Order: sequence, then C-alpha cells, then structure tokens
Amino acid sequence: MTTATFAKGLEGIVAAETQMSYIDGQKGVLEYVGIPIGELSSNSTFEEVVFLLWNLRLPRADELKEFTAALRSNYMPPEGLIQRIGALPKTAQPMHALRTLISELALYDTTPNANDVDAARAKSIRILGMAPALVACFDRHRRGLPFVKPDTSLTFAQNFLYMLNGEAPTPTMARAFDICMILHADHGLNNSTFTARVIISTLSDVYSALTGAVGSLRGPLHGGANEGVMHMLNEIPNLEAVEPYVMGKIERHEKIMGFGHRVYKAKDPRATDLQKLAKKLAEDTGNSDLYAKSNAIEKIMEREVASKGIYPNVDFYSATTYHCIGLKLDLFTPMFALSRIAGWSGHVLEQLRDNRLFRPKAAYIGPHDAPYIPIAER
Amino acid sequence: MTTATFAKGLEGIVAAETQMSYIDGQKGVLEYVGIPIGELSSNSTFEEVVFLLWNLRLPRADELKEFTAALRSNYMPPEGLIQRIGALPKTAQPMHALRTLISELALYDTTPNANDVDAARAKSIRILGMAPALVACFDRHRRGLPFVKPDTSLTFAQNFLYMLNGEAPTPTMARAFDICMILHADHGLNNSTFTARVIISTLSDVYSALTGAVGSLRGPLHGGANEGVMHMLNEIPNLEAVEPYVMGKIERHEKIMGFGHRVYKAKDPRATDLQKLAKKLAEDTGNSDLYAKSNAIEKIMEREVASKGIYPNVDFYSATTYHCIGLKLDLFTPMFALSRIAGWSGHVLEQLRDNRLFRPKAAYIGPHDAPYIPIAER
Repeated sequence: MTTATFAKGLEGIVAAETQMSYIDGQKGVLEYVGIPIGELSSNSTFEEVVFLLWNLRLPRADELKEFTAALRSNYMPPEGLIQRIGALPKTAQPMHALRTLISELALYDTTPNANDVDAARAKSIRILGMAPALVACFDRHRRGLPFVKPDTSLTFAQNFLYMLNGEAPTPTMARAFDICMILHADHGLNNSTFTARVIISTLSDVYSALTGAVGSLRGPLHGGANEGVMHMLNEIPNLEAVEPYVMGKIERHEKIMGFGHRVYKAKDPRATDLQKLAKKLAEDTGNSDLYAKSNAIEKIMEREVASKGIYPNVDFYSATTYHCIGLKLDLFTPMFALSRIAGWSGHVLEQLRDNRLFRPKAAYIGPHDAPYIPIAER
Repeated sequence: MTTATFAKGLEGIVAAETQMSYIDGQKGVLEYVGIPIGELSSNSTFEEVVFLLWNLRLPRADELKEFTAALRSNYMPPEGLIQRIGALPKTAQPMHALRTLISELALYDTTPNANDVDAARAKSIRILGMAPALVACFDRHRRGLPFVKPDTSLTFAQNFLYMLNGEAPTPTMARAFDICMILHADHGLNNSTFTARVIISTLSDVYSALTGAVGSLRGPLHGGANEGVMHMLNEIPNLEAVEPYVMGKIERHEKIMGFGHRVYKAKDPRATDLQKLAKKLAEDTGNSDLYAKSNAIEKIMEREVASKGIYPNVDFYSATTYHCIGLKLDLFTPMFALSRIAGWSGHVLEQLRDNRLFRPKAAYIGPHDAPYIPIAER
C-alpha cells in the first residue's frame, strides 16, 4: 500500500466540484450560482432558487411557471403511503419518520433506479414535492389530527404550513418560511450533501442518496444543531440569566449551540439574514423576549470569542425564526431537510453528470498474519 | 479558499483508520483483525466473525455463547412492522424495501439516537438480528406466502434460509451460506462502509448510518454488481457461447461484470474461496453448467486481461453460489447487505470512538458576484 496522508474528517480535501454554491468562509460570503444569498432572500422565492440550483441560471417566467406546476403536481404522496403514516408509532421522532418515508417513496415508483440526469431530476421533483406532506401528515397523525390534503394553488412554503396547521398561513409567515427555505437550500459539501454524492456515486438512485442525507442531517453536529439552540434558549429563564449562563459555558469550555462552523470564520451570511427575520417575526408574534435572549448571547459571544473566529451560524437565529413561525421543536431539523432536498438533489445531478465512485482508503492499524486459534485454546 | 488538490472519487486519500480489515490489493490478501480470510472461511462462523470485528479478538466459548444469545434474542422484529411489511407494494424491489425497513426499525426503538459505544453496539445487534426477518418476510409477502417466525435455536445463516423457504436448510447449504456471510462481512472503506462512517460522524445514529449504507450498496458499481454477474451468465446460453460473448465484450471495450476492483490488482482472495464453494455447490445442485460457464469466463479473462490487473472480484463467484443456494436474483444484493451489516456497524463503532465530522470541501467552478435580474428582464 502506498503511503498517503490521513485526512481526518477529510478536512482540507477537495472531494467534488460544484457549480451551485460558493462559500468564502473568511469574508462570510455565500452565493448560489454567483448570486449573493442576500439578493436571493430579498428578491427570490424558494421555487425559483431550486430552479436556479438545478439549472445553474434563473428561470424565465414561462420556465418558472412550468417548474412550479411540475412541483405542485407532486404535492400529493401515494394514497397508500398516507394511510401507512396513519399507523406509525406516534412516539417516533419526525426525522426518523422522514428518513423512512422518503425511502419508502421508492416502493411506489415503478422505475426507482432510473438515474440518467432527466430521470433523476424528475425523481428529485417528486421527492421535493411530496416531502412536505410526509412531514405534515406524520405530525398531524401524532397529534391525533386527520391528514390535510395539499393545495396545489399554494406555494411550497404556503402549502406546507397549510398542511401542518389546517389553515393557510398569513402572508408574513409564509414569506418568512419561504426565506428560511431559500437560506437552507444549499451549502457546498456539508456532510449530508457529501453523503448524497457518496451514495449516488455507486450509481444507486435518488431515493437512496436523499434517504442517506436525511440520516446525516439528523445528527447534532449538523442539522440537529438548530434543535440544540432552542433547547439552550429554553434553559435560560430570562434576559438577566444570559450573561451567567454563557460565561459559565465558556469557563467550562462547553460548546454554545449555534456558534462556530468548520467553514466560516466570519459571521455566516445566512445568520445575518435570519437575524433580521427573527427580530421582525419575534415582534409580530409576541416573542421579543426570545429574540432579546438570542441577541444577548450573540453580543457576549462577540465580546468573548469572536477573535477566535467563532460567530453565529445558520442554526442560531433559525431557532427563533422557526419558533415564531409556530413550529414544534422537533420539526426544526425536518424543515432544514425540506429545504436542503434542493441542494442534495442538485449535487446528485452534478455527480451523475461526471461520476467517479467514491472509494477512499482506510489506514489499517491492527495486527497482521494472526493465527486462527481454535476456541478451546483461547 | 486555500488551494487543494481535487481528489476525484477520493482515490488515494486515507479517510479513516481501522483495526478490522487489512487489504493488500497487489498480493490479493484480505485479513480480518490480522487473520487471513481463508482461515476464517475454513474454520470460523459468521457469529464468531462478527464478534471478532466488533471486539478485535476472537471470543472465548462463554463470550460467543452470550453474543449468539443476544443476537438470537433479536431475531424477531416488532410485530407491528411485520404486519406493515404485509401491506407493502409487492412490486417493490428488495433493496429498496430493506433500506426502508432498517430505517423504520428506529421508529420502534424508544432510544434510537443513543450512540455511546455500548448503545451503538446494542443497536447493531438489534439491526443485524432483525434484518434477515425483514428480507425474508418481504420476499414471502410478494410471493403471497405467510411470514415464518424466526427459530432462535438456529444459527444466523440457518435461520435466514429457514424463514425464507419455510424449511430448515441442509447442513451443506447452511454452511455455504455461512461462508458467504463471512466473506462479505467487512472490506475496508468500500463505498457503503464509508457512507456509514460519514453519516455517523454527525453523531447521528446507527439506524441512519446503516440505512444510508444499504442505499449505497444497492448501486451497480458496488453491491449491485453480483446481480449483474448473474444477468450475464443468463445471457450466455451454453459453454460454447462463452468465448464469442466475452471476446465481443472485450473488443467493444465493454465491462465484464464481476471483474476488476479499485483495490485489488490480483485475484480477490474472497473470489478464490467462493470459487471452491461455487464448484462444490454447483455439482451438488445440478448446476455444473453454470459453474462451467463462470470458470470459462475467468479463463478467457485471465488470458486476455490479467496483465492489466483485472481479475475476478467477490461478486463473480458469489453469483453462482447464491444461485445454487436457491436465492432469487434480486435477493443477491440483500444477502450482501445482511453480511455487511457486520462491517458497517464495526466501522460505526470505530468512528464513534474517535469521531471527527467528515466535511470535505467542494471546488466551486461557477460564476461570481452575479446580479439578481428581475424575472421580466431575463
């Protein structure tokens, strides 16, 4: 075996090329296909951003109309699957349910393995279109409420909140949620996106790739972190308690959830956008105390650890935002997943266009040429 | 962004350390914890090999007894899940079903996310114990047959064939299947194992990691290849047709399924073991023509392309072996998965013991600082 450097966690290794998102972690820049994220969150919609990521350009009006129609025609999952969701254990956690149900969508597809680029794109639209109903249906099931059928006259963001709550969201709520979807849609070779590319590189299938990605995102070192932020905010009883709480954590060298990122050594531009959103939503929904706590944490962290390159990441203000939208804590990470299906699918398409099987090496650090000792002699 | 080399497919990159399997691809050596694979396939059992991989030493008699009892106590999946399998679409493919069902096991676990090493080991035993019933139950369901409850007096290999066929296998069949399980149990950082390590590195959970791994294994560039070998053997009507078939493929520069490997540039030692097994089983089961075709293909390939380092891999003779055991074509890859759960779980345990989040970089090759052009102006 040739000698090679052990790149733990693959830090610093370039494992793929992408034309979708560009990150400058030093300057705190994020662009989708060259367009700064702030421009998109201010002016675009989630549907348009998905088109942008998958086609590497903004759509013309007729293209956006066609794409939106295709997505909406997939809002309704197979009837049989909706019935099966109604018999799942109500104690199950939504991320485990979502992973299972995205996987199960393959069982209702007559050609689940088709992965030429056109077929993979169609399957991506199918999964993205149906995923909100899977989450909403499971959540209502565990609350003892009947399934609300999707409304194909609504946007992706509107329709999800409608299926979840049984009533259409206010325009402000729908737009806030749409912006969250835009901000979480893609982010380079994060772990779940990398997972999707690794899986599809065996020429497996879109369902396998996205199922694996959901499993990765669940972890507390990845998408699960936004739940951790909310737990932290709930632990802090009031504004006065912020300073001793944060300083205690810093003194004990404990991690503060929602801060720090492998890539960003400046403030995550998504956090900047989410902060504005969280502030406004908190005011509108009587959650100003929650925003105030978040903001106080950020100020202490800036004073204490910004010099070490530790800044708020995307999870930090998304917690307050999701809470103000009325989402239950354990739906925060599924929301991240709904949005990131856009990025996962886009990376699957990129991988399929120029595939090479991911097959790194392991360094073996055990014994050699050991005998098989019969059991009586051990 | 610092400049870094783009390692396409991560070829040549060491992404993890392992104490489980050692591969010398030049010499055609495979060892589990230092013990040559041929020693294990001759002398050991699958249960013992799983213990070896997870504990990095062979068990004493009492330890093996305890481990086997723990595995057997997990042979029966949750009753509710068995009922749900009975309502799945019969047209579904077994690998998609297995991926979904391993994921769904998490919904019946009250602590699915526990991933300290002891908990992860217990979950690995649970998944390994239950997985054969998931495959057998689904296969019988699609054949219109009732579920056969597991028999905890049987070995892993015996019990699977019993649940699949409704009758206990002959000792020869059971031993042949057990050897297949041993040979496929672990193999360095193959794609599905790497997938499992990438997923667990977010501190996700064993269900997520193994679900993703099943999705990876499904691909034709990985575990799906053994099905491809069988398709090829079925395409060749008789022994005389082998030479023109293979030479035609070589002349057209088409891939011959079951030959070549990213790691081995010599004959895969598992292929050597499986060849002996396939030959004997083929004679015993009246499939000598199938073995003869396989062997003829190997001889032509040796004459034509062995100089390029292209030799039979693990999939080549496993196709004949599985066929002789009486397995249907689309159960070949699920069999690979059942065995590889051992390796996937072992790598998950290794990763958890010394975790570092996998987060490589992507090289961005698109435009920068592009404007957001309003839709009417595009």
